[in-house]
Amino acid sequence: MTDVTLTEAEGRAFITRALMAANVSEANAATVARALVAAEVEGQSGHGFSRVPAYAAQARAGKVKGHAEPVVTQPATGALLVDAAHGFAYPAIDTAIAALPGIVAESGIAAAAITRSHHCGQLSAHVERLAEAGCLALMVANAPKAMAPWGGNAPLFGTNPIAFAVPRRGEPPLVVDLSLSKVARGKVMLAAKRGEDIPEGWAIDVDGKPTTDAAAALPGSMIPAGDAKGAALAMMVEIMAVSLTGAQYSYEASSFFDDKGDPPGVGQYIIAIRPETTAGAAFHDRIDALIAEILAQPGTRLPGQKRLTGRAAAAERGVTIPKALHDEIAALAG
Amino acid sequence: MTDVTLTEAEGRAFITRALMAANVSEANAATVARALVAAEVEGQSGHGFSRVPAYAAQARAGKVKGHAEPVVTQPATGALLVDAAHGFAYPAIDTAIAALPGIVAESGIAAAAITRSHHCGQLSAHVERLAEAGCLALMVANAPKAMAPWGGNAPLFGTNPIAFAVPRRGEPPLVVDLSLSKVARGKVMLAAKRGEDIPEGWAIDVDGKPTTDAAAALPGSMIPAGDAKGAALAMMVEIMAVSLTGAQYSYEASSFFDDKGDPPGVGQYIIAIRPETTAGAAFHDRIDALIAEILAQPGTRLPGQKRLTGRAAAAERGVTIPKALHDEIAALAG
Repeated sequence: MTDVTLTEAEGRAFITRALMAANVSEANAATVARALVAAEVEGQSGHGFSRVPAYAAQARAGKVKGHAEPVVTQPATGALLVDAAHGFAYPAIDTAIAALPGIVAESGIAAAAITRSHHCGQLSAHVERLAEAGCLALMVANAPKAMAPWGGNAPLFGTNPIAFAVPRRGEPPLVVDLSLSKVARGKVMLAAKRGEDIPEGWAIDVDGKPTTDAAAALPGSMIPAGDAKGAALAMMVEIMAVSLTGAQYSYEASSFFDDKGDPPGVGQYIIAIRPETTAGAAFHDRIDALIAEILAQPGTRLPGQKRLTGRAAAAERGVTIPKALHDEIAALAG
Repeated sequence: MTDVTLTEAEGRAFITRALMAANVSEANAATVARALVAAEVEGQSGHGFSRVPAYAAQARAGKVKGHAEPVVTQPATGALLVDAAHGFAYPAIDTAIAALPGIVAESGIAAAAITRSHHCGQLSAHVERLAEAGCLALMVANAPKAMAPWGGNAPLFGTNPIAFAVPRRGEPPLVVDLSLSKVARGKVMLAAKRGEDIPEGWAIDVDGKPTTDAAAALPGSMIPAGDAKGAALAMMVEIMAVSLTGAQYSYEASSFFDDKGDPPGVGQYIIAIRPETTAGAAFHDRIDALIAEILAQPGTRLPGQKRLTGRAAAAERGVTIPKALHDEIAALAG
């Protein structure tokens, strides 16, 4: 199997064409393409080009509305409600990211509740842009069910990521992005496809019993990072991303991977904070001090650095995807 | 060793007298006493009566200022800065809790940054009161260093708790309160005192090596819940509780347990959200639906229920503490 290498601009144009052929507006297709190429470049291929076939199928079926435009209201001085209108998540999130820095200049803290939304890819990219605009940002999202509540055995919560970004003086933002399952569900899917076992501690089967059989784990449930504590945090994410936004709970949401059923209708919740409001001008000195203290210990590194090396590599050498995936997307573009 | 049983009111008066004898103002002593008795009643004896001797010693030494009054400013429409002025944390937190619900009625979301603060006890009690006032509340706090950054071997972060509370219709709030170490440091201290081993996976020694020797673990570092993910969340808490508040980092803070050194000067950050702002009137129905779905799975229970059974028991039978601790506090009261 050979690979195909494209420049980032070529990759974006390639995805845009494929999505437009699937009844997605040019503006939405370009927004989605930008997010997917960025994820691919930053080492998150599970949120990259691999999503194009499923996105296109869903757009064709109307499970995601390719021409939807997000509708924004501001029900309180510090709160935005963004109705993604069952379109792609990225245009809705972009709308929130554009508006929040201006709001926090007055309010110090503000939030965007995004509802009737869809797969939002790597959260790191969203919070990072808010940090580039000077905000400390916190984001949560839900996703179709994959993780049982603590003590239970049936999937109910999504793997429910939390992301966090902090502006830095003269450096790219400090970015944390983690899902609350011990390992990504994609690793279990891959093992099941290859007929391989998974390590103990990753998942339970449908009876709630620990399993190393990937095929038995798939209809079962992922184990949360930090066990009961991770399960409690997954519930917190579920409440913020869904109960606060009017979206569909993870156990109500249809798959992000096929064109079956109603739109998933998941939610995202983003909090933006202007650090100087309470920390004053010393904020950046204090962040520098903390980071220096962490990095002074041998063996440590900051989270989120892979994205930077990925970007540098892509700027130099472009982005490489498997030929089979390339050809599948090319066929969509017609 | 026999025990002593007091009514909650007697317990509060008892602690108030002991703290007043240590140069704490009557109002501050009563506020601290309320928090400590509530923690004891709710099964958190590590944040209960056992703290009185250390609090009194610190008040006498001026490491905590017994007559301090919190100073509140509102630097933006949605942000409070509360200077605890190196007094006890509880009066400063109470000030924030009193102000936030009124602010979020306008802003939808608001935050209180508490600086130059002290040990804040069980976070659950603070977020619960905001939920009783109709707010969804999120709180983080730092504490003296106990946990290494991921890959490192020397304590740098505190065990850095996260708490979360959600208002419920006709029921006490749903409350989550967890520290980001795999187990509480108190368990290692207890094992060291008794000369017992600790299970593998709890802690590392000063060389960063896993240890089951409690005495070797104490100067070492607690392992984060969820390993690298918990360490990343501990960094997030550190940044919110300290970088945003102008407080002292965990690695800069003096002990909560003795009267040596400068005030610890730690920080707390509280976010309050009015759920109906973005979720509308359906919010409570949706919370009910989620909780019903969780509890429909055999083996599940909601977090934070121990506090409710503890309260019911204390209302009936009072609160019981070891006689040695009772006598130590009685001696302080003179």
